[in-house]
Amino acid sequence: MMQTLALGIDIGGTNTAFGIVDRRGNIIAKGSMPTKGHASIHHYISALNDTLNPYFQQVGKENILGIGVGAPNGNYYTGEIAYAPNLPWHGVIPLVKLVQENIHIKTTVTNDANAAAIGEMMYGAAKGMKDFILVTLGTGLGSGFVANGQIVYGHDGFAGELGHVIAVRNGRDCGCGRKGCLETYASATGIVRTAEEWLLERNDSTLLRAMTGNITAKRIHECAENGDAFAINLFEYTGQILGQTLADAIAITSPQAIILFGGLAHCGKYLLDPTRMNMEANLLKIYQNKVSLIQSALPDADAAILGASALVW
Amino acid sequence: MMQTLALGIDIGGTNTAFGIVDRRGNIIAKGSMPTKGHASIHHYISALNDTLNPYFQQVGKENILGIGVGAPNGNYYTGEIAYAPNLPWHGVIPLVKLVQENIHIKTTVTNDANAAAIGEMMYGAAKGMKDFILVTLGTGLGSGFVANGQIVYGHDGFAGELGHVIAVRNGRDCGCGRKGCLETYASATGIVRTAEEWLLERNDSTLLRAMTGNITAKRIHECAENGDAFAINLFEYTGQILGQTLADAIAITSPQAIILFGGLAHCGKYLLDPTRMNMEANLLKIYQNKVSLIQSALPDADAAILGASALVW
Repeated sequence: MMQTLALGIDIGGTNTAFGIVDRRGNIIAKGSMPTKGHASIHHYISALNDTLNPYFQQVGKENILGIGVGAPNGNYYTGEIAYAPNLPWHGVIPLVKLVQENIHIKTTVTNDANAAAIGEMMYGAAKGMKDFILVTLGTGLGSGFVANGQIVYGHDGFAGELGHVIAVRNGRDCGCGRKGCLETYASATGIVRTAEEWLLERNDSTLLRAMTGNITAKRIHECAENGDAFAINLFEYTGQILGQTLADAIAITSPQAIILFGGLAHCGKYLLDPTRMNMEANLLKIYQNKVSLIQSALPDADAAILGASALVW
Repeated sequence: MMQTLALGIDIGGTNTAFGIVDRRGNIIAKGSMPTKGHASIHHYISALNDTLNPYFQQVGKENILGIGVGAPNGNYYTGEIAYAPNLPWHGVIPLVKLVQENIHIKTTVTNDANAAAIGEMMYGAAKGMKDFILVTLGTGLGSGFVANGQIVYGHDGFAGELGHVIAVRNGRDCGCGRKGCLETYASATGIVRTAEEWLLERNDSTLLRAMTGNITAKRIHECAENGDAFAINLFEYTGQILGQTLADAIAITSPQAIILFGGLAHCGKYLLDPTRMNMEANLLKIYQNKVSLIQSALPDADAAILGASALVW
């Protein structure tokens, strides 16, 4: 009996995760392979094909209606990955073309945050919502904006760069060449930069001082859970900057909810409480107490795979 | 021979303008009446009906498919005007209900900036565009965001408040109760506030000093056209704040164009040049030299009427 299936692929800086998904969002088979360590993008695509082949045999390749890929800087319109700083390949990669030539299944790509937004909309916290914002808090800060039930791609496919809205005028240097971008404050690397700056300035936390140069967002979270005031303050400051900027984004798209996703979102109340407080304090009256700030309930890997696969339907 | 027509109504703080429009966007009849001076909203609606009746007789009321209304704080979803500071009626006005009960034609409302955006999309500078931002620079600053060919209303109909994005953290007091909102800088009243602040501080422009308390955006424009450096600097500062904030909005929706509309937009290059320069200087690289910043080519009154009427189709 024939089934209609989709293959969702999430290309991350370290790993490429994939899953074969049915129309109801059940992941019926999944796996992964390293993104790094291939001599070129062509070797990577070839290795991907080899890794996928046993899965194709298992479910019947003819039953797979299409492939959806989520990747940093993936462009829905052009099918390319353009200048992704955290991927091993430089310049513009014609991903859709390469996948289709090698795997011979119709393929669509979008950026990882948009894929996660689609995953949340179809199977997660945003089920049934037509207007929401998904924010991924990982190494950087990515976002997917949904309005009228559709991803906002912009005229060129590059919409949704909330991480590069200026949160602090003339603030921290950003990898993009400008100053004060939101992701230099509100991301796993951002909170570490705050910790390092504060330690240099204040020199008052024995707990964290011992860790300078070796600070991670995960360790800061652990310290906060152990009641360390310095770590809790770090989250409060991160939440202040994030909340202020979210309030401005709400004035543009008036979403029903903002869903936080990825590494730093797992820090739960330490980040969510100050973010929500500062967001509300900075909202125009007509938006107050109307926008839910919630943590994604889908496992990170699954949301990305599910979202990517949903591009197929 | 029966024609299909739409009635577009633009409710402004002073005047209510209306036009009967065919499907091609030809205004085949138009008129206006005062918005102010009616004892209540019920008297206003009744006067509107009386004013419209001769037009209905002229074209045949049965040929009018619907009424579209653009009004400050008009809400597309609820059909209400909610707390519009520049209209004579306080609180929440169930406009669609009142118009339908009195005029007996199906009616839709949206806010004035969204109506102008629809007008530009159907008949003006944004013809054929699916992703753009319209910014109205009048007493305040309004905006209509179009993504995927549709107005972004948000989940509650209140999206597009670019005038209340914080342009300067802890900046000028805004009528909304917060500080530093874009419209306190980039609007007809905003540029006058800048002039007054600078005159207090610098006391160095004989031309404008004589006018303190009596400064208008129109007079500043005239002074700029006469080469007054102080007036030109006022536009440069206004363009700096506006350009910086537009750069952030572009990072969210990646529009093909930003269209400036309304009073201050008529100041042309004095405002457009510094706005464009500061917008480009603050853009993430992927957006540079891709977003057109243009002045609306439609007469203000017509764009609002055309946009409102287009709600009907």
